[in-house]
Amino acid sequence: MKPTTLHPAAYVSVLAGAIVLALLGLGAVLADDTPIGSKWWPSEWGADDQRGAANRLTPDKVLEARDLIQQGRIYQLGRIYEHGMPLPGKRHFSLTIPGLPTGAPTGANQIVSNDELFSGEIGQVGTQFDGLGHVGAHVDGEDIFYNGFKLGEFGDPYGLQKLGVENVGVFFTRGILIDLVEFKGVDRLPAGYAIPASELRETLDAQSLEIRPGDIVLIRTGHGQLWMRDNEAYGAGEPGLGMESAKFLTDHKVALIGADTWAIEAVPHEDPDQAFPVHQWNITRNGVHHLENLDLEELAADKVYEFAFVFSPLRLKGATGSPGNPIAVR
Amino acid sequence: MKPTTLHPAAYVSVLAGAIVLALLGLGAVLADDTPIGSKWWPSEWGADDQRGAANRLTPDKVLEARDLIQQGRIYQLGRIYEHGMPLPGKRHFSLTIPGLPTGAPTGANQIVSNDELFSGEIGQVGTQFDGLGHVGAHVDGEDIFYNGFKLGEFGDPYGLQKLGVENVGVFFTRGILIDLVEFKGVDRLPAGYAIPASELRETLDAQSLEIRPGDIVLIRTGHGQLWMRDNEAYGAGEPGLGMESAKFLTDHKVALIGADTWAIEAVPHEDPDQAFPVHQWNITRNGVHHLENLDLEELAADKVYEFAFVFSPLRLKGATGSPGNPIAVR
Amino acid sequence: MKPTTLHPAAYVSVLAGAIVLALLGLGAVLADDTPIGSKWWPSEWGADDQRGAANRLTPDKVLEARDLIQQGRIYQLGRIYEHGMPLPGKRHFSLTIPGLPTGAPTGANQIVSNDELFSGEIGQVGTQFDGLGHVGAHVDGEDIFYNGFKLGEFGDPYGLQKLGVENVGVFFTRGILIDLVEFKGVDRLPAGYAIPASELRETLDAQSLEIRPGDIVLIRTGHGQLWMRDNEAYGAGEPGLGMESAKFLTDHKVALIGADTWAIEAVPHEDPDQAFPVHQWNITRNGVHHLENLDLEELAADKVYEFAFVFSPLRLKGATGSPGNPIAVR
Amino acid sequence: MKPTTLHPAAYVSVLAGAIVLALLGLGAVLADDTPIGSKWWPSEWGADDQRGAANRLTPDKVLEARDLIQQGRIYQLGRIYEHGMPLPGKRHFSLTIPGLPTGAPTGANQIVSNDELFSGEIGQVGTQFDGLGHVGAHVDGEDIFYNGFKLGEFGDPYGLQKLGVENVGVFFTRGILIDLVEFKGVDRLPAGYAIPASELRETLDAQSLEIRPGDIVLIRTGHGQLWMRDNEAYGAGEPGLGMESAKFLTDHKVALIGADTWAIEAVPHEDPDQAFPVHQWNITRNGVHHLENLDLEELAADKVYEFAFVFSPLRLKGATGSPGNPIAVR
Repeated sequence: MKPTTLHPAAYVSVLAGAIVLALLGLGAVLADDTPIGSKWWPSEWGADDQRGAANRLTPDKVLEARDLIQQGRIYQLGRIYEHGMPLPGKRHFSLTIPGLPTGAPTGANQIVSNDELFSGEIGQVGTQFDGLGHVGAHVDGEDIFYNGFKLGEFGDPYGLQKLGVENVGVFFTRGILIDLVEFKGVDRLPAGYAIPASELRETLDAQSLEIRPGDIVLIRTGHGQLWMRDNEAYGAGEPGLGMESAKFLTDHKVALIGADTWAIEAVPHEDPDQAFPVHQWNITRNGVHHLENLDLEELAADKVYEFAFVFSPLRLKGATGSPGNPIAVR
Repeated sequence: MKPTTLHPAAYVSVLAGAIVLALLGLGAVLADDTPIGSKWWPSEWGADDQRGAANRLTPDKVLEARDLIQQGRIYQLGRIYEHGMPLPGKRHFSLTIPGLPTGAPTGANQIVSNDELFSGEIGQVGTQFDGLGHVGAHVDGEDIFYNGFKLGEFGDPYGLQKLGVENVGVFFTRGILIDLVEFKGVDRLPAGYAIPASELRETLDAQSLEIRPGDIVLIRTGHGQLWMRDNEAYGAGEPGLGMESAKFLTDHKVALIGADTWAIEAVPHEDPDQAFPVHQWNITRNGVHHLENLDLEELAADKVYEFAFVFSPLRLKGATGSPGNPIAVR
Repeated sequence: MKPTTLHPAAYVSVLAGAIVLALLGLGAVLADDTPIGSKWWPSEWGADDQRGAANRLTPDKVLEARDLIQQGRIYQLGRIYEHGMPLPGKRHFSLTIPGLPTGAPTGANQIVSNDELFSGEIGQVGTQFDGLGHVGAHVDGEDIFYNGFKLGEFGDPYGLQKLGVENVGVFFTRGILIDLVEFKGVDRLPAGYAIPASELRETLDAQSLEIRPGDIVLIRTGHGQLWMRDNEAYGAGEPGLGMESAKFLTDHKVALIGADTWAIEAVPHEDPDQAFPVHQWNITRNGVHHLENLDLEELAADKVYEFAFVFSPLRLKGATGSPGNPIAVR
Repeated sequence: MKPTTLHPAAYVSVLAGAIVLALLGLGAVLADDTPIGSKWWPSEWGADDQRGAANRLTPDKVLEARDLIQQGRIYQLGRIYEHGMPLPGKRHFSLTIPGLPTGAPTGANQIVSNDELFSGEIGQVGTQFDGLGHVGAHVDGEDIFYNGFKLGEFGDPYGLQKLGVENVGVFFTRGILIDLVEFKGVDRLPAGYAIPASELRETLDAQSLEIRPGDIVLIRTGHGQLWMRDNEAYGAGEPGLGMESAKFLTDHKVALIGADTWAIEAVPHEDPDQAFPVHQWNITRNGVHHLENLDLEELAADKVYEFAFVFSPLRLKGATGSPGNPIAVR
């Protein structure tokens, strides 16, 4: 996600709040009661850490995930990257095949070959993994990210010199699907709906599941059904985490949070003066990565609520995120 | 790979052969004794199949792989994508961060965000998975690919309409490393060395392993040690499969072949008139995918020869390949 | 332009016609009465020519243009290239600034610098010059372009080996504006309106002007007023040349035709079975280049109908077109 | 240009100087005796001006240029943009043709079409025009550009909000070629040679020419002969303006300075602690644009020292520069 992904209407509202605050002189310094709170570093994994909650991914979690594989059935959670998919703001997606074929017939065996050329915000279009270099907070004139790293120091036009996605490693761990659509008996939650922590808890109970440290948690809101069906509605807002439910998950020491939405969190946010505060809470303060624009329909249809989850981000040096096709296996 | 990745010297030699054949009038039609042979379709998985040997990936193979996970240790086999990595021909790699930050401070919480912009032949630079739309053969005036699909019919400038990488699915199966460097007691095999089938067999024996249908096989030649150390030598040629050893692997009904080289096969080829014939044999005729530019050093150092292998290609609609960070788990 | 720039509705209609013809077995061979006609090569400038009607640009035309410069007033005819401008089909436009600044403070003088990164179909977005490699005709299984050059021979995935825009040279010649909006006393001509030759003639008479060999002619339809005001209407169709008026201009041996539309010609075409036949007539058969998406409003407001015209295409090797900011000077 | 275009060796030297200064605490604030000097705004064209010395382009200058056109002969000064041309740092150039053809046969007339896809730092590769948003100075924690505009205020990841190249307008004015190669009787000046003002003066005298306000001045050093012949030497350094000769030209109130080099100025600079100070002097302080990587050979061969000069930058919104094919006409 990024701020410009807000629907124009929502954006104006956020901006209006920001202007009011700016007039009150509160814009520059984040107060203790802001979502991200006061100084959030050094991280619990040390002052040099660049992996955040991915540090919770241990061999034991791999083995725990392994034991959930009983049928050998794989669910692909990544959406297809294609022309016409929802794209926020000025981001673009271009895939072309030079030449058809790109490589003309060569050799006695007359081999021909094709390449594809891609242009776009690769870690921030379609199914996407938000790395720790994706969002931060502007505090006292500086852009500060996870573990207190300052963009002024690690920013580089050709790739971040810290917090790049190549540092994260691989997610092979226990995964949990919290299916709010099923639990609430609706088609999909409405845009702007901030899921209360109690609903996460009750759904988990109904699914007879608990969250354990190092798990990844996927939230199904039903919003994903709009993907490629009503892209405008898909991008105009979304249901998702509020501050309370975000804290519920970080309190449970998850390693990653995913959803069938483009920002994981309610848009517009509960507090219209805040822009994507759950991003800051999860990523910047707690080092918990996001996986956005997932397809959770098949998993839900089969009522697969606990599974081995595997996602291996591209090792794009200095990138803020990664595309991918995460899988659930049971 | 593609033909233009040949070293100039090798290329001239291939070309010279091609010209001779053309003069003899043999260029246009592939004879039965060419690597790819005569009519290679319909595929054993039906006339409509677009997945090739990925059809060998079954739930049973997932369970077989699961049982190899005993320690929960993950090996990342994907290389880092970065400026300065080896790039053949006119391919390019560009990664930039617009703005730093891309999204200016917004909201009372003053969130900032970064994106990355990527431009390049995404499925054909760095660690890469060759899909079935990547190589074919020019026969009687037509470019024919896996399962007899004609590029003139499924080619599309904005993404192939058949054989796109989004059709492949996920590789979660038993993996085998054949470490020729260890077996032969050398640092690395020389460029142009065509590994005989006997050496594959003997190395497997020495490693007390057998290949089973649906496995993926990784070949370590040591050539990968040149990556980012001597890019010119890395790209000028490579050791790898010859026709005999390629057939040995396809006879064993593997699902995918990977290596620490950029083309899996010996370059220049045993027969200098042939350009990348193993590509045609594996991909075009047998539907066996390639994984190129892997980093197999850590796996080899730990003598991990049998493992769970997981690779989930990006679902890039109509793409000829995919980048990735495949993993071995034991 | 390209065929996919057609409005969906128009496109279906063209396609329907094409299908009917295909069923009748007429699709593959172009009959004498098709817009492009029978064999159109060698060109009047020789069998090797790659410049087409740009050969009419002589030192004498430069001097003729010079004499039209009396006030030293320059009119910029190029539109601004920007996010949100009309883009047909799957073309894209992306301009970003890596880093801000791209180059960090360096030296005792602490210099900083910015670059811009561009991605897009550079010669076919916004104000654009159609080179001779842009359109051709599929005849008897081959794609044939200006002067009979076959795409199968000069096509190259990394830039055309013939007819590239670097061959064209510079347009410094007499320019004529035919202002149909003024002449007809309307705001703008309706989409699909095929300007008859008689109207070109009458407007020229009203403007007391004649067309001379080597001139460039700009047609003002008023359609350009929709640019960035109603992009959907702008792209859905347009008024412009029909076959008769196109022939009127090529009979007058013009060097280039421009307009305040995206295709110069009426869309949909007079004959709904034809797709962009004026493109074929002008470019493929007669070697007359196009300049599309011009801003002719200021020129018209000042009633500047005769002027020195200067346009110097980018020398992009092997490109099909060029962006630009052509000027009229009087 | 940008700092990273320095040859590694030169770069280290600049850096070493910078480090020394930084240790002395002199890095952050620019002293009066630095090339760019103290406060350089508001500009002589007002505090809001975004065009700089392009304001010297008047109708009178157009008429003055017109009178220099006596033969109608056009010289193209822009180089061909192509794969393999010199590219500094991490910039790239990619041009591909999707599909060949991009648009498949359509309509009864079976039209086919090609597009080209471009990716690269469009205003900063090959023949390039440096706009006023290209370079500035880091002073007291802020990046300050022409007319005192602060990057922190006008920077935008999707295009500069001030000083974008779309503001510049068109150069149609008197042009002067100062041919130092001819004057000094050498093949080319050596890299690092800082042309003294006296040599500019003497060459002008020898050519019987004077510089007038609003002229553009092109400097021929002979370095351009290395283009595509020895790209490494071309980029490793270059002869060009020193501070004295730069001041000579700005004192003469030129509108633009061009050269057959990639940075106009001597690299390494006379004072090895300075990085591209002439850029700052000309562009940032004086608003005088640069044209780099010109081909001046043909002009020199014909001894054309005075001519009409025409260059119309692309109106790329918010871009730092523009590609182009400037022309000299006599």
